[in-house]
Formats: sequence, structure tokens, C-alpha cells
Amino acid sequence: MSGNTIGKLFTVTTFGESHGTALGCIVDGCPPGLEISEADLQIDLDRRKPGTSRYTTQRREDDEVKILSGVFEGKTTGTAIGMVIYNGDQRSKDYSNIKDLYRPGHADYTYDQKYGFRDYRGGGRSSARETAMRVAAGAVAKKYLKQVHGVEINGYLSQLGPIRAETVDLNEVHNNAFFCPDASKLEALDAYMRDLKKAGDSVGAEVTVLASQVPVGLGEPVFDRLDAELAHSLMSINAVKGVAFGDGFDSVTQKGSEHRDTLTPNGFTSNHAGGVLGGISSGQDIVARIALKPTSSITVPGETITNSGESAEVITKGRHDPCVGIRAVPIAEAMVAITLMDQLLRHRGQNAGVSAPIPPIPGQC
Amino acid sequence: MSGNTIGKLFTVTTFGESHGTALGCIVDGCPPGLEISEADLQIDLDRRKPGTSRYTTQRREDDEVKILSGVFEGKTTGTAIGMVIYNGDQRSKDYSNIKDLYRPGHADYTYDQKYGFRDYRGGGRSSARETAMRVAAGAVAKKYLKQVHGVEINGYLSQLGPIRAETVDLNEVHNNAFFCPDASKLEALDAYMRDLKKAGDSVGAEVTVLASQVPVGLGEPVFDRLDAELAHSLMSINAVKGVAFGDGFDSVTQKGSEHRDTLTPNGFTSNHAGGVLGGISSGQDIVARIALKPTSSITVPGETITNSGESAEVITKGRHDPCVGIRAVPIAEAMVAITLMDQLLRHRGQNAGVSAPIPPIPGQC
Amino acid sequence: MSGNTIGKLFTVTTFGESHGTALGCIVDGCPPGLEISEADLQIDLDRRKPGTSRYTTQRREDDEVKILSGVFEGKTTGTAIGMVIYNGDQRSKDYSNIKDLYRPGHADYTYDQKYGFRDYRGGGRSSARETAMRVAAGAVAKKYLKQVHGVEINGYLSQLGPIRAETVDLNEVHNNAFFCPDASKLEALDAYMRDLKKAGDSVGAEVTVLASQVPVGLGEPVFDRLDAELAHSLMSINAVKGVAFGDGFDSVTQKGSEHRDTLTPNGFTSNHAGGVLGGISSGQDIVARIALKPTSSITVPGETITNSGESAEVITKGRHDPCVGIRAVPIAEAMVAITLMDQLLRHRGQNAGVSAPIPPIPGQC
Amino acid sequence: MSGNTIGKLFTVTTFGESHGTALGCIVDGCPPGLEISEADLQIDLDRRKPGTSRYTTQRREDDEVKILSGVFEGKTTGTAIGMVIYNGDQRSKDYSNIKDLYRPGHADYTYDQKYGFRDYRGGGRSSARETAMRVAAGAVAKKYLKQVHGVEINGYLSQLGPIRAETVDLNEVHNNAFFCPDASKLEALDAYMRDLKKAGDSVGAEVTVLASQVPVGLGEPVFDRLDAELAHSLMSINAVKGVAFGDGFDSVTQKGSEHRDTLTPNGFTSNHAGGVLGGISSGQDIVARIALKPTSSITVPGETITNSGESAEVITKGRHDPCVGIRAVPIAEAMVAITLMDQLLRHRGQNAGVSAPIPPIPGQC
Repeated sequence: MSGNTIGKLFTVTTFGESHGTALGCIVDGCPPGLEISEADLQIDLDRRKPGTSRYTTQRREDDEVKILSGVFEGKTTGTAIGMVIYNGDQRSKDYSNIKDLYRPGHADYTYDQKYGFRDYRGGGRSSARETAMRVAAGAVAKKYLKQVHGVEINGYLSQLGPIRAETVDLNEVHNNAFFCPDASKLEALDAYMRDLKKAGDSVGAEVTVLASQVPVGLGEPVFDRLDAELAHSLMSINAVKGVAFGDGFDSVTQKGSEHRDTLTPNGFTSNHAGGVLGGISSGQDIVARIALKPTSSITVPGETITNSGESAEVITKGRHDPCVGIRAVPIAEAMVAITLMDQLLRHRGQNAGVSAPIPPIPGQC
Repeated sequence: MSGNTIGKLFTVTTFGESHGTALGCIVDGCPPGLEISEADLQIDLDRRKPGTSRYTTQRREDDEVKILSGVFEGKTTGTAIGMVIYNGDQRSKDYSNIKDLYRPGHADYTYDQKYGFRDYRGGGRSSARETAMRVAAGAVAKKYLKQVHGVEINGYLSQLGPIRAETVDLNEVHNNAFFCPDASKLEALDAYMRDLKKAGDSVGAEVTVLASQVPVGLGEPVFDRLDAELAHSLMSINAVKGVAFGDGFDSVTQKGSEHRDTLTPNGFTSNHAGGVLGGISSGQDIVARIALKPTSSITVPGETITNSGESAEVITKGRHDPCVGIRAVPIAEAMVAITLMDQLLRHRGQNAGVSAPIPPIPGQC
Repeated sequence: MSGNTIGKLFTVTTFGESHGTALGCIVDGCPPGLEISEADLQIDLDRRKPGTSRYTTQRREDDEVKILSGVFEGKTTGTAIGMVIYNGDQRSKDYSNIKDLYRPGHADYTYDQKYGFRDYRGGGRSSARETAMRVAAGAVAKKYLKQVHGVEINGYLSQLGPIRAETVDLNEVHNNAFFCPDASKLEALDAYMRDLKKAGDSVGAEVTVLASQVPVGLGEPVFDRLDAELAHSLMSINAVKGVAFGDGFDSVTQKGSEHRDTLTPNGFTSNHAGGVLGGISSGQDIVARIALKPTSSITVPGETITNSGESAEVITKGRHDPCVGIRAVPIAEAMVAITLMDQLLRHRGQNAGVSAPIPPIPGQC
Repeated sequence: MSGNTIGKLFTVTTFGESHGTALGCIVDGCPPGLEISEADLQIDLDRRKPGTSRYTTQRREDDEVKILSGVFEGKTTGTAIGMVIYNGDQRSKDYSNIKDLYRPGHADYTYDQKYGFRDYRGGGRSSARETAMRVAAGAVAKKYLKQVHGVEINGYLSQLGPIRAETVDLNEVHNNAFFCPDASKLEALDAYMRDLKKAGDSVGAEVTVLASQVPVGLGEPVFDRLDAELAHSLMSINAVKGVAFGDGFDSVTQKGSEHRDTLTPNGFTSNHAGGVLGGISSGQDIVARIALKPTSSITVPGETITNSGESAEVITKGRHDPCVGIRAVPIAEAMVAITLMDQLLRHRGQNAGVSAPIPPIPGQC
């Protein structure tokens, strides 16, 4: 499969550039009979869309999704769901000055090298604008997982630069423009971002996604373990530089007696594993964490080269997110949903025949 | 594709359990004409094999690989390469006492839930013994990449519990049983491991893999970015809980002006990105880091349940690695090689037609 | 992969129903730098579109394709090409009378069984209207194959009911509404079709596709042989009941001394094989033949059942092709092009490294 | 995926050459809990194996299969099943005389062109010996389909050269070395084959496969229709030049009123469709027919060229089947089983969620 498709039974294929005519995707493999409407998808699209707060890009896009196929009388038919979002607020000439420049930290150089030339308008296909369709596709998966298995997928901003959320209140996430689960940090975040914008700089972030009520047994050993597939889908999000489950990199300094999660007749007593054992979901919460780099589109002048190899100075104007980690929250949720959905269908395909699974521990799914 | 295959053009499919008859794999898509022999593969297999030092499991396996097809008169023919390693030192009865127990931190519980029962002998398919074939397959990829493109792939133990390598001397890696690149840490490592074994406990580790001379342009946007595919393949290694590229989780606190790598007519001046921009290799070294949890097979007693849900105590005897991170070094190298190889063939397939790539920056591949 | 995608490196994913909002597709893996415009695609779309002669359905559709992404300044960029055709002339109420009926010979019964319900408007996803996007995608492949390798792909109607083309003049194919290569049969075809329409019946057909100048070496043994992949893509066209290469079913009665194609220093002296040996293109013309059944949508009354299992009579009104084989010509060409393109990229990916191919026989590609 | 794998959820990957060390395969995705033993697989392997009658090659091979993994205490575990057959009766020097010759009708020329050189021993990977592992893998699928759904898959030789079976008695198939369902033709077949061997020539054949009790609903529109996937798997068998379902190429001359199968409250009244409607199984018998060309390995002298392009005469000695169609019967059954199994798992994966299928017509599965 070429690179614009993800998933094996529940597959999502996307197209579209930052300043092209439209973005679109095809969701294939969605079970029939799921009630779904454009309004269902719009909820998450609105959470991701630009221009909603002063902390994100000022580009104005409605990101209004249209379902073109695969839904009949309000229900999925089992066939391919085509969706499209037309681009509105393109300002391609903003980019004519970087046409021949390789912005440091960007994909400009590598796209040119790979393909021989590039669509320089807003990064073309390498722009995070592409992720809008992931959110639309993820909303389909989310709705199915929720409705049929009660799965809840919640993401939040766990850290922005030096500011770390110390408490996690999932309800709070929806109350602020940072997707921050700790209300006590909002003021600090606001101040930090104001200073950052003034400096014309950007900053990194960490996003955490929790998936609860995930059925036990998802994940295909050995290469398509649930965590391996999630790592794939999460690392495919723009700007992500690291993915971890449960204790993640903290495991490096842990002892076995400390890390292993005790099983009791009433369930596990801890979740260092982050919900995955041997690559298969354990019924505990899936806990995934991603590190996002600071966007490279900043107005702090930088040194670079032109596409003919000459030295040049670059200042990236245009409209950019000073912290791409913020809007990454609904995107990360979407990628987790898409991968869980795919693994659910794969599991159901292979394991519904001869043998019956053993009843799970109480408290687990 | 089912879960025992990785790659799209260069595909590796493996089989085999810890205490079954044999392990095997099929490497499909290797270009024809590559000189390869069992001896080539044995080098890395010997680096991974158990029982070579007192820091690893005492199971004795020669891990002698046999090539069964795909090589004719010493060269690959372009067709499927079948390989097999017969298991020697099985002691399955070591495991009869854990037949009905779910060892905490292990895949016992999740395999039972997924499949309805499990091969309990040494973890069956969930055992890291499975990775022997990855190493054999990876050796094919490594040889091709080295011979045709000069790619060098070097892994090392960058941290074990609290002990971190402070200098990186790739030659030193081959001189010690820890794959440690910092000779000044060997004594500390030895002492630490001795204490750990005495305590019957285990510890986590971090492994770093460097890939040099990687051609510019590998990686398929948007879902099959090079880093996303590497994250997939590295996270599929047993016990891995985190994967990061370049500055990884340190990016969370960085500013854009700090993180972005400057391009000059003589090449990049830093490598925060870890060799990947926009999901495509930049020609700089690929720098991948993985966190491995401490193995859960320890003799420190633990609480758990039986497969009928009753409370039980568990002490995992048998022969186990007190730090699985050590032997993970050649495995991680193999997975990086397999993924680079796959991406190389995919890139070559799509990008060898109409347009010619722009000459890379001096100093880059 | 779910079922709406075909190809591995050059992949085509489609969506859309007969009476839905729009049809669309994503062409992924097209090499960068190919000049392509909507006008290029429209040529074949116009050949397939309905309502162009009295021998095909009277539904009026412009089938005007829009490219939404993947093309920049007139050239493919190497990323996903999104395309859409909006439906115009839907008359869904034509179908309300068959809402609860299973039309014999149609997919009504099987879709209901598979998915639990169906989009009954014009057959929904099972309609041949879906093939419009195949033609658009195929036009991309055709243009690349022609431009880079000089490949020519020509289809024609080799038989309609009892009337068989006895001579093959590829230029003649474009001069008549039957895609018939034998001008001497046009009168008979016209008379036959007139009688058929009067009777309210339909008829089967055979379509032949020739691909010339195909490079030697395409096809991946053993399961993805070129002929196996072509059989897959051709059999996926609506109404196709048989696929054959070269002498096809005539081989059953042939002797080896008769069937084998002699090689001489000046090339092959015959082409019983149809351009494929051992699943790999030989450089001779690929000769593929498909049998298409008569459409089941006829006004001759038939016996059937309702979706509650009761006996009923059915007369399929609406607008239908009395011989679907006619418009299948550009569709079959498109499927051949898509598969050749995919195999070309796969071949190029694997076989461009260590060994150099042997120069082909003069006269072969 | 590279070319040595078939299937998406139930995948079979094979390796091995005619005169290499061994043949092998990995069956991935088999549901857990299926009782399977080497003896189960051997039944079909013995039906395919060479040297069992005077009508087939005189090569002596036991074709004794060993299961190396994936089965524990007599049952499949849900993980990858590795299998191997060691080659016994290789006589590679039989082939040294054709080392530099391209046998007409063989893959010699195309393999050389594709890969730059070839394993000339008995055709290497292009030999039908490769199909032994398909039969082993198919036996796993057959057993599952039979046990869980009652599916019966029966192949037979429907025609050999001019001799056509006129009656079909499936029990008779097992009583003769021709897999012929019509006992009245055995004498004619015997006489025909005797003459053919005397003449040193070979002949084509047609094989038919019937699959009964196939559940309604298998097949994934639009590209992975059941018939398209079956066409792929059947056309991938050596020497196959045509594949057809139901009335196949006879449909070309049929009218719609004649071809469509009437549905009644008691089921279908005919089966022109061959068990597939709209690419989805209808519950009727799947009827697939394949045309096999005469083997090109004959002792009738022929004209050809050497690999340096010079004219030469060729007489193919060695041990060959005068009619490859005979031993193709168990191979074709295996391929049908593998594809049905894959489609079953895919169908189960996608269609087990929200909506419930409508009860099938009595008499259908």
C-alpha cells in the first residue's frame, strides 16, 4: 500500500494539500448500520479547526465536512465513505517568498529531494492541514467504538514547554482552549503563550490520550501488536518526535518488581503497562503519550539555503501555530480511534470461530 | 495482512514459539544478486543469542540458521528466502507450574483472553525468542543497505537502570557484553547486574540505534513516514514502551529557535530532528531511541491470579534475562534495517520515473 | 486492506453510489512530474459515459471529473491525487418499486445478506456507475505508461452475442459506438441491438484488451504474477464472468508442441501465451479477454422474491444498458493500465539494485 | 506486500524452489482452537504428489510435511503456523544442459530478464513444485471451513484435450488417477495419455472446482469481490490461462432472460452465476473453472535461443507431467479454500457489529 492509507480492515486514505482545492478521505471497512451524520464529524473537526483562539493560527477555515457516499438514510451501508472539506482561506502568495528556500526544520528540503520539486504553498501535503481528514475519519471510529463497546477516548495537553498539568480532570479539558486538564495552569499557559508570540517563537508539547473500556484481546502479535500499530499511527502525526505507553521512558530506570502490574481477583492494582501486555489490550486504560516538537515556522530569523544550495536568511511569516501540540489533541484521539477500530475488526475476524475466550477479570472489559 | 508480517515491498514474515520445534522466517522482496551466506546472518545471530554472558539468560541455543531457498550459487535470486533455526535447549517442564497462572507483566493473561487458551511453554509466541528470526532477516537488509548505499546501522545500550553512557565510541560496543559504548561504565554495569541477580530482580534500559549514510528521500507521506514506520517496527520488539527520534521527549520543552536544524551550503549544523524531516530521511544520521521495561520474569514473589480467577503467588523461575535491554541491541538494529530496506524499495518504485531529484547538499547522502 | 482499494504501490481507492452525491477516488503512488490535467482524464471518461448512443443507457451524466489534489502547476507531485465526479441525473424514485424486491441476477439479495440492508437506489455501490472513477484513475496510469515506456493499451468489443469481430483494426474502434474493430460487422450489430431493445432483453459480450510495448519483467512470482493480478482487476469489473490470456480456454485442447511460442534471435514467432510467461511479462503484447454476462435489468418479466421471502414478479424499468459489454471497453483498458502501473512500480522497487538485467531480445521491450 | 503472500486476514506466504533444500510456508491468521495434525495435511499432499501414477512425473517425492509452530496440544493457537517439506529426489544435473537455453513456453526467459539471472534447476521458483505448500496451507483452510461452516470443496478434471467429462460423480473422482468424475471416460483418457507419452508431447486441460455450503455474504466490494479474489488465486497457479465462474465465456452469447437465476421462496432455480452475485457469495455452489495450458517441457524438438541470443534447438528431458492439469485438481481446491477462508475472516471482521443480516432463503447457507 502506498503511504496515504492506514489500517487493514478499517482503512483510511486521505488526500489534500494546505492550499489545494480540497481535502478528502475515504473510510473503508466501517461496519454497516452505524448512524452517522456530518454533525457527528463536525464536533471533533471544530475542536481541531484553526482560528478558534489566539493561541493558534489565524487562518480562517470552517472545515465543513461533506459526506459524499457510504451513508444511506442516516446509516453506514458497509461500503466506502467518501468525505470532502473544501479549502477556503488560502493565501498562497504568502508563500511565494519561500518558494526557493528550505525552511529549517521543515519538510521543504526532503520533499524536494524525494520528488524533484514541491508544492510550496503552505507546505503542500506536508502541512498539518492534512490532519483535518484524520479527525473526520476518527470521528466515525470513535462513534462506533463508543456505541458498540462503550469505549471512551480522551486526549489532553499534559505539558506545554515547562508547564505540566498536575491534575487530570477530563471535564476541564473541554472548558479551555488549551485542552488542559488542570485548571490551575491556565493562567500560566496564557502568560507563556503571550510571551512566546511576542518573541515570534514556538514551543513543544506533550499530549496524552486515554482510551477506556477497550475490549481485552485487541492487537495482532507479533509485528502488529496494538502498541506497535498505535506507535505507527501516532508517530505519523506532524511534529511528533516520541511515542510512549504507560510508564514509557520512565521504565528505563525501573525494576521488574516495581513495574509489573499485580493481578487480583478484582482486577489489576496498577497500570504501569498502559493497558497493553504482549502487544494485546488488557482491558485497562490505554495510556499513550506523544512528544511534539515546536513548529519551525517562526519569525525569529534563521540561517538556511536556497534550492540551488546558496546561503540565505529565512523568517517564516504567514499564519502558524506557536504550539502545534494544542490542536494535536483531537488529532491524536482520532489516530487512536482509527487504530483501535482496525484492531477490533481484525480481532473479530480471526477470533470468532472455534474457541471461546475465557471470561475477563471483573473490572476489565 | 495478518500480524506476523512486516514491510510492504521488503517483507518479513516469521513463525515460531519459545519451546516449539523451530523458528523460521520468509524474507520476500530482496533484490536479486546480493551475495549472502548463512555465515553473514550468523554474525548478528551470535550477538543476540542467549547464554553468551552471565548477564543474560542461561538457556543454551546455538541459533544456527539454515537458508532453505532464495539463494542460488551464493546470490539472492529475487524470490522468497526461507530460513529456519531449530530449537535445542527447551525445558518445557520448567513451565508446567505456571500453566494455570498469569504471570504479572506478561502476555499470559492477554493471550488467554484473545485466543481462548495459550501455549504456556516459555511464553510461546510471546517470548522474545521469536526475535531471533528478525535478526536473521535484518542481516539480509543490513548487508544490502551497506553494499549498495554504504548505510551503517549501529546500536548500543545507552542506559541501563540508573547508569547512562556518557560517551559514544561505536568501536567499544563490540568489546563488551553490554553493548555499551562507554568503557568507563563497564565496572558500574557489572556491579549493578551482580546485585540485581542476587536480588532476583530485573531492570529497564534504553537502546539507541544510529543509521548513517541513509539516502535522502526515504519515507512515504503521510501515514508511512519513515519515523512512523520505524516507530511501528521498534515498538513491535518485546518489552519496548517508548520510541523517540532525535531530541524525542526533550522537544516538549524546547523552543522552535532551539530545535530547528540550520541548513548551510555545507550541510546541517545540528541534528535535533534525528535525521527525519516531514517523515522523510534528510541524509543526516537517523537517531532512534527505545525504552525497554524490566522483564517481568523475576524471582521476587508477586501476587497474581490463576486462569480461573483465584488469587495466587508467583515466583518466575526458569532462565531469564535480568535486563532484556542488553540483547535488544542487535534486534533493534535489525528492525531499523528491515524498515529502511522496505522504504528504500518503495521509494525506488515510485520515484524513478519522470522527474529527477535535486542534487543533495554536500555532506548528505 | 478493505475492498475498495486495488494495487500495492500504485493504489486506487474509490467511493460512490449510483444515486449518491458523488463518486470519487484517490490515486496514490503516482510518480512525481507527470503532466496531467482534467482534460487528459476526460477523454476516457467520455468514452465510458452513458447516453452517448442509442445502444447504451439513456441516463444523462456529464461525468465531469475534478482533480482536488496531488497536481501542482500541471504536474503530479508524488502525493495522493484526489478526484471527484458529482452525480447529476439521479432519478431515485425510479427505484422505489424495487426497494423490497431482489432483482434476479443482481446484487440486491447478496448485499442485503451481507450488510443487513442496502442502498436500493440504482443498485447503490453495486452499480457499474462506480466504474467511472476507475476510468479516471486508469487514465493517469495510461498516460504515465505511454509517456515513460511507450506502452499502448487498446480495448475493443471482440464479440456481442453471436456476432464476432473477424478482423481487428484498432483505428476502426474509435469510429463506432460499439468499440468494434471490424467495420464489416457494424450493420449486423446495429440490427441485433435494435431487435434486442424491442424485446426488452439484454445480451452478453466479449471484450479484448491489448497492451503493447510492455517492458519485459513485470509480475511478482508466485501469487502476484502479472496474469493473476490482471485477472483480479478484470474480474472486479461488474458483470465479468471469465478472464483469459492468450489462447485462454482454447489451451485445453492444445498440445505442447502447438502452444509453446518459439523464440528466435529476432523475437518470438507466435503469441499463444498472451504476453506472459511464468507470470512475468515477456515483452510481447499482453492479450486479455473478458466475458461479460448480459445485464439482468430487463423488461422481460421474471419471477423473484421480496426481502421478506415472498414470491413476486419483477420487471426492471429504469435506464439500463442492453449490453454492458460495450461500455466495458474503456473500463477494461483502465483496469489493465492500473495493474500494469502497479507492477511496474513494484518491479522497479525490487529490481534496481545489485544485478543488471540481461538485454532483451530485439523486437521485445 | 511482495508476491509470495496471498490473503489479507488469512495469509499464506510460501518459499522454495524445485531443486532447493526445502519448500515451506507460513499460514497466518488461522483462528485458534482448530484441531489440526500433519496427517490432516498429508491427505491432500498425497493427492498432489508426483510419481503416483504413470500419467504424472516420475520424480519421487514423499512430500512429507512437518508443522514447526502454531499448533499446541493438537490445536491451532491463533499464531503463525510454519510448515516445511524437504526436497528429496533432486537431480539438478538433469538441467545443466538447459542452463543457458530459454525453453520455449517456460519462465526461463522472463526470470532472466526480470532478475538478471536464474536458478535453472528444474525451473527454480517457477516450477509447479512450489504448489505443494499451497496444498498444505489449503488443507488448513479446508478443515476449518468444513468444521465450522460445513463447506465442501471438490475439484475434478472436467476436460483433458478433446475428452470431456459428461457426468459428474464426485465420489468417482477419488477412484481414479485422473481425478475424473466420469468413469465412462477413463479408458479413453488412458489411451490418450499413452499415445501422448509415446509422442513425447503434452496436452491442456480444464479443471472445475465446486464449493458447497459457502455462507452467503462473502466478498468485499468493489475490488475484492469474491470472484475477483478467486480469479487472482486460481490464475496464480502455474499453467493457468483462463478462469471462469458459472456460465463463464458461454455468457457472451446468452440473453439476460436466459442467464439470470430466478429466486423463489425455496431458493434459486438455476445457477448460471456460479454462486456469486455482485461479487458476493449467494449461498449457491461456487462453480469455478480453469483452463491449463499443456506443459512446455516436452521431448518434441523445438527452436529457441540461448541466453546470449543465439539460435538453438531444445529437447526438454527430465521428468515432467504430460498433462499438468491432472495434478492441478488438489491445487485448485487449495486456492479456493485459502480465498474463501480469507474472505470469511474479512467478512466476519467487518460485519458483526451494529446490524444483523436478514435470514437467508431456505436452501441457501
